[in-house]
Amino acid sequence: MNLKAALTEWTGLLGTGGVASDTQTLDHYARSTMPKGTRPAAVLYPQTTQDCAALVRIAAGHHCPLYPLSRGKNWGYGDACAVSDGQVIVDLKKMNRIIEVNEELAYAVIEAGVTQGQLSDYLLNNHPGLILDVTGAGPDASIVGNTLERGFGHTPYGDHFTMSAGYEVVLPDGNVITTGFGHHDHAKTTYCYKAGIGPSLDGLFTQSNFGIITKMGVFLLSRPAHVLAFAIILKDNNTLSRCVDALRPLRHAGLLQSAIHIGNDLRAMSARGHYPWDQLQGQTPLPKNLRETLIKKMSLGAWNVVGAIYGTKGTNRGVKRELKKAMRGIARVKFFDEALLKTGIKILGVTRRLGFGAKLLEMANAVSPVFDLLMGRPSPKHLSGAGWRSRRETLKDNPDPLDNNWGFLWVSPVVPMTGDHALRILKIVEPVFEKYRFEPLITMTAITARALDCVMTVAYDRENPAESQSALTCYDELFAAILREGYPPYRCGIRSMSKIFADKSPYAVFLQTIKTSIDPQGIISPGRYVPL
Amino acid sequence: MNLKAALTEWTGLLGTGGVASDTQTLDHYARSTMPKGTRPAAVLYPQTTQDCAALVRIAAGHHCPLYPLSRGKNWGYGDACAVSDGQVIVDLKKMNRIIEVNEELAYAVIEAGVTQGQLSDYLLNNHPGLILDVTGAGPDASIVGNTLERGFGHTPYGDHFTMSAGYEVVLPDGNVITTGFGHHDHAKTTYCYKAGIGPSLDGLFTQSNFGIITKMGVFLLSRPAHVLAFAIILKDNNTLSRCVDALRPLRHAGLLQSAIHIGNDLRAMSARGHYPWDQLQGQTPLPKNLRETLIKKMSLGAWNVVGAIYGTKGTNRGVKRELKKAMRGIARVKFFDEALLKTGIKILGVTRRLGFGAKLLEMANAVSPVFDLLMGRPSPKHLSGAGWRSRRETLKDNPDPLDNNWGFLWVSPVVPMTGDHALRILKIVEPVFEKYRFEPLITMTAITARALDCVMTVAYDRENPAESQSALTCYDELFAAILREGYPPYRCGIRSMSKIFADKSPYAVFLQTIKTSIDPQGIISPGRYVPL
Repeated sequence: MNLKAALTEWTGLLGTGGVASDTQTLDHYARSTMPKGTRPAAVLYPQTTQDCAALVRIAAGHHCPLYPLSRGKNWGYGDACAVSDGQVIVDLKKMNRIIEVNEELAYAVIEAGVTQGQLSDYLLNNHPGLILDVTGAGPDASIVGNTLERGFGHTPYGDHFTMSAGYEVVLPDGNVITTGFGHHDHAKTTYCYKAGIGPSLDGLFTQSNFGIITKMGVFLLSRPAHVLAFAIILKDNNTLSRCVDALRPLRHAGLLQSAIHIGNDLRAMSARGHYPWDQLQGQTPLPKNLRETLIKKMSLGAWNVVGAIYGTKGTNRGVKRELKKAMRGIARVKFFDEALLKTGIKILGVTRRLGFGAKLLEMANAVSPVFDLLMGRPSPKHLSGAGWRSRRETLKDNPDPLDNNWGFLWVSPVVPMTGDHALRILKIVEPVFEKYRFEPLITMTAITARALDCVMTVAYDRENPAESQSALTCYDELFAAILREGYPPYRCGIRSMSKIFADKSPYAVFLQTIKTSIDPQGIISPGRYVPL
Repeated sequence: MNLKAALTEWTGLLGTGGVASDTQTLDHYARSTMPKGTRPAAVLYPQTTQDCAALVRIAAGHHCPLYPLSRGKNWGYGDACAVSDGQVIVDLKKMNRIIEVNEELAYAVIEAGVTQGQLSDYLLNNHPGLILDVTGAGPDASIVGNTLERGFGHTPYGDHFTMSAGYEVVLPDGNVITTGFGHHDHAKTTYCYKAGIGPSLDGLFTQSNFGIITKMGVFLLSRPAHVLAFAIILKDNNTLSRCVDALRPLRHAGLLQSAIHIGNDLRAMSARGHYPWDQLQGQTPLPKNLRETLIKKMSLGAWNVVGAIYGTKGTNRGVKRELKKAMRGIARVKFFDEALLKTGIKILGVTRRLGFGAKLLEMANAVSPVFDLLMGRPSPKHLSGAGWRSRRETLKDNPDPLDNNWGFLWVSPVVPMTGDHALRILKIVEPVFEKYRFEPLITMTAITARALDCVMTVAYDRENPAESQSALTCYDELFAAILREGYPPYRCGIRSMSKIFADKSPYAVFLQTIKTSIDPQGIISPGRYVPL
C-alpha cells in the first residue's frame, strides 16, 4: 500500500477539496455508536461516476483499500466506519443529484448521496402525487445506502431492495455497468422492470463489496387516496403471540400490504425519554416496579403495534372490518386517519384536562410521528430511542447519535412470522440482556407475510468504560445466540461480519471465488460481508 | 471431451436406467417448436442432489458439457434443447419430491422436477387453504424451471422469482450451497425471507448457467375469501392505450394486485381454433375481411382484457367501484365470480337460444379457463393458441406442442406500462409480422405496476419448409427490432441468447469473469444466457 503516492494522484483527480487526510477529518469519520470505531487512512469526495472509476483505478495501482459510503449514517451497525482500520473512505455525499422523476411510472433515478429528506422534499414540492418510502433514520440518511443494506420502511414499498432497479456500479477494475436492462443502449425499461435479462445482479451488489453503487432507480408509491393507521396495545407476551398469528393471514391475503411495527414497552419508553438515571442513582437495569410505573404513566402495552391500511375509503373500510374481526378477543384496535390525528390530538388535549381520554391522547401522540413514516415523511424523532442510556441532555434539535455520543449496537434477527417464534426469540435474548444489566429494547416488524425483522438495541452509556465493555460482550453473546438458534440477522454491523459465514464452508468459498475474480487485489471494502 | 468414459462412470453412478444415449431418446429430446432443435449427446436422470453433485464431477473430469432441465417444457424458447448440439442433458424429472408444505407460513419446498399439476393437486387434496400460482403452460410444466426463467402467472403471486427462496444449487465444482439463509445450519427462515444475509444470490442463478438448481422454496397464496374476475373488451388500439393508462394507477395503488392479461383479437382467435386453411385455400396472412368476420362471430374485441381482484367480498366491492370508475368512457367492465361463472354459463346458454346474451356467453366461456389460472388451477387449454398455423387436427386430449408438431417461436419484449409505449411496440412489430405473412398474435401482461410483458407468437406450419424459413427470419427481425428500439425481452429462446449482450461490453465481460471463476471448464449449459 502506497498511500502517499495514491493521495497525490487522487488530489490531481479530485482537487484538494476532494481529498482529506487531516486528523480532524479522520477523527470525525472514526466516530461510532460502538465503544470504538475504526479509523480511515483518508477520505475522498468524488463528484461523478467518472471520478469514482478513476479513483478506483488509482487505488488499484497503489494497493489502497477503499470503503465507499453514501452518507455514513449506518448508526448502530458501524456508522461511517470501514470493517478495519486504514481503509480509504469514498464519501459519495457530493453525488447527490436527483436525475429524473418519472411521474407516470412512479420512479426516481438518484445518485448515491441523495438523502431521504432531500428526495422527500423534492417530491412534495414538484410531484406531490408521489411518495418515497422512508426509514426511521431521519432526513439525512441515504436512500441508496439503506437499499444496499436491504433496509426497510413502513409503507407498502417498505422492502427497499425489491423496490429499486437499474444500479449503476463502478466495478473494482474501474469499469462501469448498469444492472437490469441498463446494459442495453436506450433501454426504456431500466427503471420499470428490475430483473432485466440474463442473470439478475442487483442482489449481488447488496450487502457485499463487489463495487461502488453510484446511481439507482427507486420505485415511488402513488399517494394513496386514503391511509388508515391502526394501533393495538397488547398487555402481555401471550397476546403478542396471538396477535402475530392473527395478523399473518391478513398479510397473506394482501389486505395488509405494508410493514407492521411491533415494539415492546421498553422500546416505547426509550422513544419518550432517557433511562431514569437520577431516580435510580445510577442503578441498572431498570427495576421491575419502576418499569411497571412507567408503563402505566405512559399508557403503554407490553407490546405496541402500529401499522396502516392503504387504499380508498371504501376498500379501507373493508380491511378495517377484517382487522377488527381478526383481533376480536385479543385486543382492541384503534384507527386513525390523517384528519382525525390533526384535529383529534387537540380535542383529546382538552378532554384529558377533564379527566378522560388520557390513554387515547397518549396513543394519538405516539402514533403521530409514526404516521409521518406511514406517509413517507422522514422524521428525526425516531432516532431518539437510541440515546436511552445516555446521561446527557440531547442536543437541541439535533438527534444525531454521533453528535450526542450515544452508545448503542443493533442486533436484528429475522424470525418466521408466527406467535410461537416471536416468543422463542424473546426467550433466547432476554436472559442475555438481563445478564449484562441492559434493558431489552425490542421491535418486531412484520416486513413480509412470512418474516418478522427484529431490531434489538443494546443501549449503553458510552461515557462509562465498564458499561461499554459489558455492551460489547452482551452484543457478541446475542449475536452468537441468534445464529446458534437458527435466526440469522437481516443485516449486521462491522463487528460481526466475520462471523456470518462458516469458515471454509462451500458458501463462503463461493463468495470468495467471486470476490477474487472481480477484485483480485481486494480494493473494495475488504471484509464487508464477504469474507475477503 | 471424452463422452464414452463419462458415460461409463455415469452408468456406474446412476445405473443403466439413469443414462440414455440411444437414437430414439436423443431424437425425442431434439424435438422443438422451432424448425430445428439441437441434439444432445446423452441424457442423464439423477434421483438425488448427491447424484447431481457426483455427475457434475464426472462431467468435469471428462470435459463434457451438461444441460440441466427440470421438465423440458420450455416450448417456444428452445423446449428441452441445449443452446448447442452435443451437450449432455441432465433431466431432473425423477427428482420430483414435495419435501414440505408449511401451512402456517404458506410455502412449499420442492425438488426441481415437481410439476405445477402435481403440486396444485397435492395442495387441493392436503392443504386446500393454499394455492400455487401457475402459468398457462399446463399441468406438466415445471415450477422450478419456470421460476428460473423468471416466468409469471396470474395471481398476486405471479412473479415467480420474487415468490421463491432458498435455492439448493449444485455448483460446477460439485459443491452444494443453499441461497438466502440456507447456508446457516438450522436456519428457521430459509423459506420465509428471500434475501438472507450477505450478497443475495438468487438472481444470479436465474437465466444463467452457474449451477444446477435442485430444490427451492415456493411461496403459496392463501386461498382468497373472494375472487372477482373482470373482463374488458376494447374496440381498437386507441382504447387499448387509454385502458393501459387507466389501469396503471390501480396497479400503483395496490388495488389491483395481480397480473392483468391483455390479448389481441388474433391471439384470442388462436385460442379457439386453428388458422382457417381450408376456407382460404392455403393463402396467408389472414385477410382483413375474414379477420373482421371472425372478430364478430367470436364476439371479440381488438383487445381483450382479463384480470381479477383478490380479497374479501367487502374489499372487492370497493376495488370494483374504482375499476368501473377508471374505465368510464373507455369500455364497460364485466365482473364474474366463481359462483356466477358456474351457474351463469348454463343460464346464458339458454338465453342465447332465445336470441340474446351471445356476447356475454362468449365472454364467460372465454373467461372460464382463465378463471382456472386466476385460482391456481393449471389448465392445458391455454397451450392451444400455439397451434394456430398447424394444418393437423390437434391430438385428442393432448395439447403438447411437440407431440402435435406445432411450429411457433416466442418474442417477449418488456414495455413500460403506458398506453403510449403499448402503441409504439405495436408499430415496431406489426409491420414485421406482415412482411413475412404471419399474424401478430400478441398479449401484453401488466406483470408489475410499471411493466407490460408482451408475448408475441410467430406461429407457423412446421411441416411447410418455406414457411418455417420465413418464421425464423421473421423471428430474428423481431428480436433485432425490439433490442434496437429499447425494449429488450424478459426471457429469450436459445436461438437468441448470443445476441442479448453486446460483445466485449463491460457487462458481458463481468458475466464472463464470474462464469470463468466458478466454472472454468464451462461444464454447465455453455452459452445459456451468459456468453460463455
